[in-house]
Amino acid sequence: MKIKFNIPHITGNEQKYLKNVLNRKTFSGEGYYSRKCQDYLENIYKNSKCLLTNSCTDALEFCSILLDLKKGDEVILPAFTFVSTANPIILRGAKPVFADVDYHSMNLSIDDVKKKITKKTKAIFTVNYGGSSCNLFELSNLCKAKKIYLVEDSAQGIGAKYKNKYLGTYGDLATISFHETKNIHCGEGGCLIINQSKFIKRANLIHEKGTNRKDFKDGMVNKYGWRDVGSSYVVSELQSAFLYAQLFDIRKVTNYRKDLWNEYNQNINNNLFDKQDIKKNDTNGHLYFLLCKGDRKKFINYMSKHNVQVSAHYESLNKSKFFSSIYKYKKCENSEIAENKLVRLPIWFGMTEKQITHIVNLINNYG
Amino acid sequence: MKIKFNIPHITGNEQKYLKNVLNRKTFSGEGYYSRKCQDYLENIYKNSKCLLTNSCTDALEFCSILLDLKKGDEVILPAFTFVSTANPIILRGAKPVFADVDYHSMNLSIDDVKKKITKKTKAIFTVNYGGSSCNLFELSNLCKAKKIYLVEDSAQGIGAKYKNKYLGTYGDLATISFHETKNIHCGEGGCLIINQSKFIKRANLIHEKGTNRKDFKDGMVNKYGWRDVGSSYVVSELQSAFLYAQLFDIRKVTNYRKDLWNEYNQNINNNLFDKQDIKKNDTNGHLYFLLCKGDRKKFINYMSKHNVQVSAHYESLNKSKFFSSIYKYKKCENSEIAENKLVRLPIWFGMTEKQITHIVNLINNYG
Repeated sequence: MKIKFNIPHITGNEQKYLKNVLNRKTFSGEGYYSRKCQDYLENIYKNSKCLLTNSCTDALEFCSILLDLKKGDEVILPAFTFVSTANPIILRGAKPVFADVDYHSMNLSIDDVKKKITKKTKAIFTVNYGGSSCNLFELSNLCKAKKIYLVEDSAQGIGAKYKNKYLGTYGDLATISFHETKNIHCGEGGCLIINQSKFIKRANLIHEKGTNRKDFKDGMVNKYGWRDVGSSYVVSELQSAFLYAQLFDIRKVTNYRKDLWNEYNQNINNNLFDKQDIKKNDTNGHLYFLLCKGDRKKFINYMSKHNVQVSAHYESLNKSKFFSSIYKYKKCENSEIAENKLVRLPIWFGMTEKQITHIVNLINNYG
Repeated sequence: MKIKFNIPHITGNEQKYLKNVLNRKTFSGEGYYSRKCQDYLENIYKNSKCLLTNSCTDALEFCSILLDLKKGDEVILPAFTFVSTANPIILRGAKPVFADVDYHSMNLSIDDVKKKITKKTKAIFTVNYGGSSCNLFELSNLCKAKKIYLVEDSAQGIGAKYKNKYLGTYGDLATISFHETKNIHCGEGGCLIINQSKFIKRANLIHEKGTNRKDFKDGMVNKYGWRDVGSSYVVSELQSAFLYAQLFDIRKVTNYRKDLWNEYNQNINNNLFDKQDIKKNDTNGHLYFLLCKGDRKKFINYMSKHNVQVSAHYESLNKSKFFSSIYKYKKCENSEIAENKLVRLPIWFGMTEKQITHIVNLINNYG
């Protein structure tokens, strides 16, 4: 029996909620289930405003518009991330400045960030890699001191905490993904988390295509009109209903995955690999990785031969074909190591003790 | 019994397909049902490439990126349209130049377009209002002669034709909406139609967040990377499966609505209103409007008192608060009339002969 790298979570309640949508006969964005999801999320992320989006990519574009990024601005982000952290910066005409990551977490290196800050730095887009983070207290204080906006790309971070405070609540803004590869999901989906009240009014416009439709729906004005730029970030009732079913499982899935994560971390013992140096309570168990000291391809083939699907991750964006076509290459050492040496192990809700033990044994016997 | 302005179409097969998605256990974009929808649409829009998006807004942003709109470029569009025709132009830094519409169709006035073309005009975003169009042969020839790109915002135009050729196939690019207010829908959704093969390669990158993931999935490369800017336009399996059920009803719904449209057009007879001057075969029956010579509010209240929900439509964007804050006001006479005088009548699949007759009688007895 093959052990897959990921199996999307299903709670068993999705069909019931989808059926409700069909019975209610309303399907478009900012409907009954969207509002229920947003309320549910705001009950987790207290003191934050949550707006559903169609992807974490959308939520990051939303941030870039909200922060008014433009030509001449620089935004610092890790080189080891998905392209969706970088594209929203480029789409606004601003310049992405890649910083390196720390070897043992693959999270943004605050030391390197400090070297990259200039007078043009308008924001830092940190990435909470795999549902863990860099020292967000330190990064947040640095941003405050330098008057730089902090955005957490917390695509993988639903339900995760750093030192007992939720990821997504450290930045001025944060984004979450509900893509099927995430702990909980709706196939494609995302959320913008707003932690500064000054952004809320404009965010409500941008969310609704730049119109004050929300005021209209809330009975504040008797017709709505064009007030700002915007996009269509609102999420259909089908997506929202599916997500709503999943939201109830956040704690259950997080705890389950954290235990799996811990099993790997406690029991893998092979000096051909470097392991993560993260505390169990500082991750939501979204991802467990190893760094191969030897040939990664050989290891991936070995696992595959034993019916275990493991997976590499991002290219280091500073070296990517697209970025190189616009800007000069600057080395990001650990990020480039991660591109070539990092391998992710299977981790999903429902994996058994037996499967984990099997994988651990395979790894410990490798080489 | 109240007659609603719109009731979203349900085919009866949506639940079956949604259940299939749950059984198949894959939910993210460009999956089984997305591809089936795209194939189905390409079977209608022969010689075109169709890519699903999360909204027509998304599809228009997609066009703006694909056409490389930027600062210094001008794009001509009707002033009487939804904000989503204009925002994608502004988001790229280009200038929207509003042209007026023709009184009897509220479609783009080609005469006014001719006056607005300058050396900076890079594209025309025409809007196929209510599922009908201006003379797209003439507009398309004008664009070819002037080397200007033509984009059809055909949000309301699924299944519609102009002189026996599908709307969406005249422009270099076109977009369609599957919002719940449209003839067929998936709550929130859209599609980009590409009629020039030179755009396809780059469109596949932009569609997948600027990566060559499509080549990877097609087995053309063994890993994928960052190749261009892009966004997350791909559509979840839930949305796609729902849409797939609906696609089979395009012809049925179009014919039904065209008949309703024709009933209104043949039988309404009250000189307090001006009627549309469009041929039945040049609309998909998405929308039927009247122009009130007198007080529109009074008419809307009259219909409401008789339990019929009628509805105004767009503000004239040249006069909008947002546009006025950036650019100088220039008059668009008919568009401004439409803002204040146009009223849309109920029209949806399943409306009865009796309901139509009732509405027609109310209107003919008005005043």
